[in-house]
Amino acid sequence: MRAVLFAGDGEVRVDAVSDPGIEDATDAVVRVRRAAICGTDLHAVAHSAQLPRGFVLGHEFVGEIVDAGSGVLGHRIGDMVVGADYTACGNCWWCRRGDHWECAERRFFGTGSAFGPPLAGAQAELVRVPYADTVLRAVPDGIGLDAAVFLGDTLATGYAAVRRAGFRPGDTVAVVGGGPVGQLTSLAAQACGAGVVVLVEPVETRRALAAAQGALGTDPDDARALVDLVTDGRGADAVVDAIGGPRGLETAFGLVRRRGAVVSVGVHTDATGPLPAARAFADELSLRFVIGNLMRDADELIGLVRSGAIDPTVVATESVPLDDAPNAYRRMAERRTLKSLIAL
Amino acid sequence: MRAVLFAGDGEVRVDAVSDPGIEDATDAVVRVRRAAICGTDLHAVAHSAQLPRGFVLGHEFVGEIVDAGSGVLGHRIGDMVVGADYTACGNCWWCRRGDHWECAERRFFGTGSAFGPPLAGAQAELVRVPYADTVLRAVPDGIGLDAAVFLGDTLATGYAAVRRAGFRPGDTVAVVGGGPVGQLTSLAAQACGAGVVVLVEPVETRRALAAAQGALGTDPDDARALVDLVTDGRGADAVVDAIGGPRGLETAFGLVRRRGAVVSVGVHTDATGPLPAARAFADELSLRFVIGNLMRDADELIGLVRSGAIDPTVVATESVPLDDAPNAYRRMAERRTLKSLIAL
Amino acid sequence: MRAVLFAGDGEVRVDAVSDPGIEDATDAVVRVRRAAICGTDLHAVAHSAQLPRGFVLGHEFVGEIVDAGSGVLGHRIGDMVVGADYTACGNCWWCRRGDHWECAERRFFGTGSAFGPPLAGAQAELVRVPYADTVLRAVPDGIGLDAAVFLGDTLATGYAAVRRAGFRPGDTVAVVGGGPVGQLTSLAAQACGAGVVVLVEPVETRRALAAAQGALGTDPDDARALVDLVTDGRGADAVVDAIGGPRGLETAFGLVRRRGAVVSVGVHTDATGPLPAARAFADELSLRFVIGNLMRDADELIGLVRSGAIDPTVVATESVPLDDAPNAYRRMAERRTLKSLIAL
Amino acid sequence: MRAVLFAGDGEVRVDAVSDPGIEDATDAVVRVRRAAICGTDLHAVAHSAQLPRGFVLGHEFVGEIVDAGSGVLGHRIGDMVVGADYTACGNCWWCRRGDHWECAERRFFGTGSAFGPPLAGAQAELVRVPYADTVLRAVPDGIGLDAAVFLGDTLATGYAAVRRAGFRPGDTVAVVGGGPVGQLTSLAAQACGAGVVVLVEPVETRRALAAAQGALGTDPDDARALVDLVTDGRGADAVVDAIGGPRGLETAFGLVRRRGAVVSVGVHTDATGPLPAARAFADELSLRFVIGNLMRDADELIGLVRSGAIDPTVVATESVPLDDAPNAYRRMAERRTLKSLIAL
Repeated sequence: MRAVLFAGDGEVRVDAVSDPGIEDATDAVVRVRRAAICGTDLHAVAHSAQLPRGFVLGHEFVGEIVDAGSGVLGHRIGDMVVGADYTACGNCWWCRRGDHWECAERRFFGTGSAFGPPLAGAQAELVRVPYADTVLRAVPDGIGLDAAVFLGDTLATGYAAVRRAGFRPGDTVAVVGGGPVGQLTSLAAQACGAGVVVLVEPVETRRALAAAQGALGTDPDDARALVDLVTDGRGADAVVDAIGGPRGLETAFGLVRRRGAVVSVGVHTDATGPLPAARAFADELSLRFVIGNLMRDADELIGLVRSGAIDPTVVATESVPLDDAPNAYRRMAERRTLKSLIAL
Repeated sequence: MRAVLFAGDGEVRVDAVSDPGIEDATDAVVRVRRAAICGTDLHAVAHSAQLPRGFVLGHEFVGEIVDAGSGVLGHRIGDMVVGADYTACGNCWWCRRGDHWECAERRFFGTGSAFGPPLAGAQAELVRVPYADTVLRAVPDGIGLDAAVFLGDTLATGYAAVRRAGFRPGDTVAVVGGGPVGQLTSLAAQACGAGVVVLVEPVETRRALAAAQGALGTDPDDARALVDLVTDGRGADAVVDAIGGPRGLETAFGLVRRRGAVVSVGVHTDATGPLPAARAFADELSLRFVIGNLMRDADELIGLVRSGAIDPTVVATESVPLDDAPNAYRRMAERRTLKSLIAL
Repeated sequence: MRAVLFAGDGEVRVDAVSDPGIEDATDAVVRVRRAAICGTDLHAVAHSAQLPRGFVLGHEFVGEIVDAGSGVLGHRIGDMVVGADYTACGNCWWCRRGDHWECAERRFFGTGSAFGPPLAGAQAELVRVPYADTVLRAVPDGIGLDAAVFLGDTLATGYAAVRRAGFRPGDTVAVVGGGPVGQLTSLAAQACGAGVVVLVEPVETRRALAAAQGALGTDPDDARALVDLVTDGRGADAVVDAIGGPRGLETAFGLVRRRGAVVSVGVHTDATGPLPAARAFADELSLRFVIGNLMRDADELIGLVRSGAIDPTVVATESVPLDDAPNAYRRMAERRTLKSLIAL
Repeated sequence: MRAVLFAGDGEVRVDAVSDPGIEDATDAVVRVRRAAICGTDLHAVAHSAQLPRGFVLGHEFVGEIVDAGSGVLGHRIGDMVVGADYTACGNCWWCRRGDHWECAERRFFGTGSAFGPPLAGAQAELVRVPYADTVLRAVPDGIGLDAAVFLGDTLATGYAAVRRAGFRPGDTVAVVGGGPVGQLTSLAAQACGAGVVVLVEPVETRRALAAAQGALGTDPDDARALVDLVTDGRGADAVVDAIGGPRGLETAFGLVRRRGAVVSVGVHTDATGPLPAARAFADELSLRFVIGNLMRDADELIGLVRSGAIDPTVVATESVPLDDAPNAYRRMAERRTLKSLIAL
């Protein structure tokens, strides 16, 4: 089969590799119909320490089951399915609690050994999926492939942020960062009861997209003033950091009101991070980290997308064939596109 | 002042009555700018056992504070405020729990002695408001008078139903009845995370309004089939009965899925009602009654309306001057209009 | 193997039947170490329309896995496990939501065709368990067999009632019925934040047991007066009906305060049941039915029992060998014992 | 009247000062029957920058209302009441949300200007209480004065930690610090559904007290090993930091499991604090600060104490007359006593 591979030195290429097959009874093999390129892919390729050359990339995918082990009970060959971006056994203490990210069987598709033992990715004609009953979910009629491909990671992440924030209907929610996750966090927040959503983003086109989708866009420099304006000076009831790092947290703490919640879905690699201790105590703040989880949230996500309450395709800038994936990677890395889909 | 009065024999008239004034230190007097006519008013006038002739009608109102007792701390003369439809002390065991409806100080504006000791209504130039700090809430910039008048009862009721239903994001919600409360229940459900909302209503124009506002409208006869279609045959995750009586509950039970919730905001006057006991046990159903409560939910409602997440004015068919209120009553009773506002 | 069998005419006997074996890849076979006799068993034997002669009875059990199909991933031969009282697939829309009772694969052990297709029971030396990864849960060190046997049904039911009631810490909870489920509901309520628990029961020894375990016991005739005394006349915040039928609901409605919750875990076989509609509306009551679910709640139950927060063995009156089970059935039916364990 | 006063140089004395009286219509004056000495008092006296000489100390109190302004509606002269440790208006945006700590009318009794404008304290024969309807709560029959005095701060704080932690029934909760707040956090956790509670404390007598009250006590050095033992190596589901400062947070982060919650009720005065960013992200941790709040939680606290579910008096080492308060301060500061009550 053909697949998007890490080519070394920050580059990707498309080439032929051997087809994956069933290895365990709970595996399925999926013929990919849509994959997507994620910021995590760009980051893995640019900082490739944990990624061997020739590794198949990608973790966002929708496709058709073409083979299934004897232990797969919930899916059949021919089913159209969306995959979570990582695997989990579905039956351990963590999975039962809905915390699949903490499962010992976690393998993150297409990222080498960055988040656990390596597992070949999904920007390919075929992908092997362990624990298929848990990791794959049927795509119902009424959700197109271009929408379904967002369920596994980008929308699952925005939605997880919204749920973890626990705001009340009518509350003001600020989102730091207007990349794909930030944009879908904004949509999920609006669909799930937020009043005003303020999206904080330096790039004008991204602010414009957010504004066209019901949020208020603002440059970081003007964010606090705008938040104050819509909250009578209190600050945002909840802030989602969708960029990560110290800057993400600092921006979020700068916008949150007393007794408000900061939720971070950005990546944090520093051993220590900024915590405004005295203020957090005096203002009873909370800070919560969360990672998207299709395996826990699929039915809710499917309900929201199938009904039209959320349309995740608004962040898709382009859809390219598999062979054009290297160029699509380049355009995304140069911020000329927001999100690229790969159609197979 | 002039006011809408009960004229006996199912009739209302507008006439002059003496101005209300401060009676207790926690009272305020409000100069009404918008009032609304509610199904409860029509019912009280038609079944007038508890309503003396000459009683001032109405319980939905927005206006400006023109006088306030010495014990009113949270409002000032000149403030634009919306009133709850009934009073409560704000400080007892019930009020502290958010259950103001159960407060011993409950007086329902403009309905005679139907729901407690009588209290003159708000379809008038002036209305006296006991416990003004609790019963009145400031209308912020950004909410027009025509929207604000819905906060006190019609939207508060729809919102209470939605909150009491406790559905999950993406769930399918059915609403039985397309009157003003049913319509705003549909809007509140959509704003607060529902996936598909199905509104069940025999009158075509009311179904059309619901459909224009994002719901699926259906005749009662076709309701179950439509609900099955969008839920893969399971039934609605939550059903709100917005008509009341045995028919409201029976229709709701007929649409709800196993382990689903029926919430009733309709009026029930029969001592006993229909409960499908064996099925409710086998299917783990729940049934919950709830009454709207601005005093508990105002900040959430204001956040939803101010941000545009909910626009309650879509149910207002007409706005009339005070002197035309009797005709507006008649048009609503004849179902020629959905909801009439009175502008003063 | 030997097993407790339905003997016809309201009788049970112990006799030899053929050993069960693995039929599906997800099956396990458990060598039973403790079984328990439940009111449901007594009811099934007395009203035996759905129970063929020679059917193996019983649905509460703990034991050791002695065989497992190739699809069983979460357990190994030799594991000590407790079983849920009914089966579920663990992977469908209902199971994912925690509503295993609604799963199409539901089979209730040892009750004939009363609650779905028949499945041989667990008052036997061996029991076949379908969907073993979902239906069985490991019993950790620190929980004895006599305690563990309560996890699958009696305690799971009491706990489900407590969770479904949704009361707040310090609330007053009334429990109607002092049988095993009522007693464990009382313990679960106390462990999970209840203030006063009032147990309503005509049999003095059962009231005494409840009182020895921290509740206030009362005869039904005195129940309302006692509840009023401890709630300043308001009524119980939540009432659990643990007896079922119209009397269970009527007693519960008679004790619940305005805006309180009635939760029924008793059995209801009448097509219609008592609903005080006008009062339920005026007082914003809620009524919820629920069935115990080890598959959803096992980790919580295990945490509560392992820590000593709940000791379910207090309701076990006696422990008998398998051959004495018919006498134990008789003693329970005559209310001479509260709950009998069978030790193998 | 006589009162405990700040004497300068880390000392307190008892002396006569003028009686307080009603200043605002919503004030009450309370004749104190029990006061308590809190770690906050010791800290204020030792670090006295914000405390003028002669200032009346203390913020934990129970007593009888002896005078009330015309705006006090919910209490009457002669009522036995417990006070919150700080004031709030009861009617603003923050108070309506239950966030009284954030109210602009916050005054913390007896601590000078440390937490807002100064307000004379309650270790005195009389104390003036602003916003009496909000700040005072009636002590019902069935709660003794020695128990009631804990409601306002020490137990309210432990309870707030437990509620903010949001753990599930049966979860393992670790409490860092065995002072009065830590001890009552342990009791509140047990009453509200915790399974095992581990209390981490270097002082042996404090560990012994915790153990006698149902927790497992451990020295900080052995804490992780003990937590691992009872959680199968996962770590505590929730950890409450009841000591504050960097050490409190670091100890808490060292005990919490992946996806667990750290709640801090200790005091934090450093501008920045320790946040293990990379781990917190990878493990989806949450960190929440919270301050006790009788005004929000009184009914729940009263229910728990009145029923005997929590007995806060177990932390009271001694009860002294007002004139002996300076010695009691000294004994607490020297850690010879855990908690001293002042009986008047």
